[in-house]
Amino acid sequence: MARVSQEHLDARRRQILTGAARCFAGNGFHGTSMQDVLKEVGLSAGAVYRYFPGKEDLIAAIADEAFGGIREAFEEAAHLVPPPTPDVLLGRVLRGVLEGRMYGMERRECTMLVVQVWAETMRNERLAKTLDEGYAGMRAAWAKLVEAYRAAGIMHSDVPADDVARTMIATAQGFIAQEALFGGVEVEALENGLRGLMSMDPQKIS
Amino acid sequence: MARVSQEHLDARRRQILTGAARCFAGNGFHGTSMQDVLKEVGLSAGAVYRYFPGKEDLIAAIADEAFGGIREAFEEAAHLVPPPTPDVLLGRVLRGVLEGRMYGMERRECTMLVVQVWAETMRNERLAKTLDEGYAGMRAAWAKLVEAYRAAGIMHSDVPADDVARTMIATAQGFIAQEALFGGVEVEALENGLRGLMSMDPQKIS
Repeated sequence: MARVSQEHLDARRRQILTGAARCFAGNGFHGTSMQDVLKEVGLSAGAVYRYFPGKEDLIAAIADEAFGGIREAFEEAAHLVPPPTPDVLLGRVLRGVLEGRMYGMERRECTMLVVQVWAETMRNERLAKTLDEGYAGMRAAWAKLVEAYRAAGIMHSDVPADDVARTMIATAQGFIAQEALFGGVEVEALENGLRGLMSMDPQKIS
Repeated sequence: MARVSQEHLDARRRQILTGAARCFAGNGFHGTSMQDVLKEVGLSAGAVYRYFPGKEDLIAAIADEAFGGIREAFEEAAHLVPPPTPDVLLGRVLRGVLEGRMYGMERRECTMLVVQVWAETMRNERLAKTLDEGYAGMRAAWAKLVEAYRAAGIMHSDVPADDVARTMIATAQGFIAQEALFGGVEVEALENGLRGLMSMDPQKIS
């Protein structure tokens, strides 16, 4: 076999994942065969199986990369002092991920793929492990932010930080679900909605 | 054919939907055949097809009933004066739905079915229409509540009511996704998380 550069290998890997992501987003995991992926990618079986022996390896690689992207956007934002409030931070991270055109996908396609991954995760232990680790990382990062909000005197309730973390992640997940289901959901709506919630008078709701 | 009571017809219908919901929650829409449903339900093809000619009819009926249940829980709560704050209302509605044991499902099974319905909705126009209408109703109800919060002087931001509505629905959807994916997510975490958010100091975040 001819020697090939790492650059070539990376580009080939990306080409395969891009085609696979497109197939999964449109037809779901179960509605996509390795044949479909080969056809979409335009490569031989040998060329593809060398990188990814099966569909499960493809989707696990995609999920891994997606979490990496979110983590990066998150860490960048969380380094700022004072810490950006949830509306600002969630808006920034979601824009970063959705406008990053992962695997060349449009934003709705991208959210559809996320929902497909969720559906598949419920019966696939390997994916469940990948998602479990990804979410644990995000929850830990948000919990740290909650401590920073408290230290800065901008969050007054002493509810468990992990509960706030879960709720922040939930709003992002729900946003993704809505965009996947209906399309046309602007990140601004989530930013505004969070601002509306934050403006609720804590004296009157105690 | 012998005359049968409406009660009998309703019970039979419920029996079929219960079995179908169980199949879809566990194996997904694509991983479930009408044969699987017949087996789970323990009825003949003739008895089932009379009510539901295909899988699509089954899942549309389940989604319709689920929205009905949520709407009911929502309307009950929204009639209260003063309007319950989002943490209280979302907690109440989610508990009502998850503990209602729809089709005899455990709460995690129930959330798994919701995620399966989302995945299927992205390639099924009939389901998309059902969900579209269901969400439109929920958004309208939340938007009215936002007006009530403002009238009662407990929400100070003048962001669009629909944006707050979307965000409230998103937190519930994300909660459902987390329970489906990981299990063991308590409604209390969402209530606390929303309270934490509402306690953020609007002066300092302007």
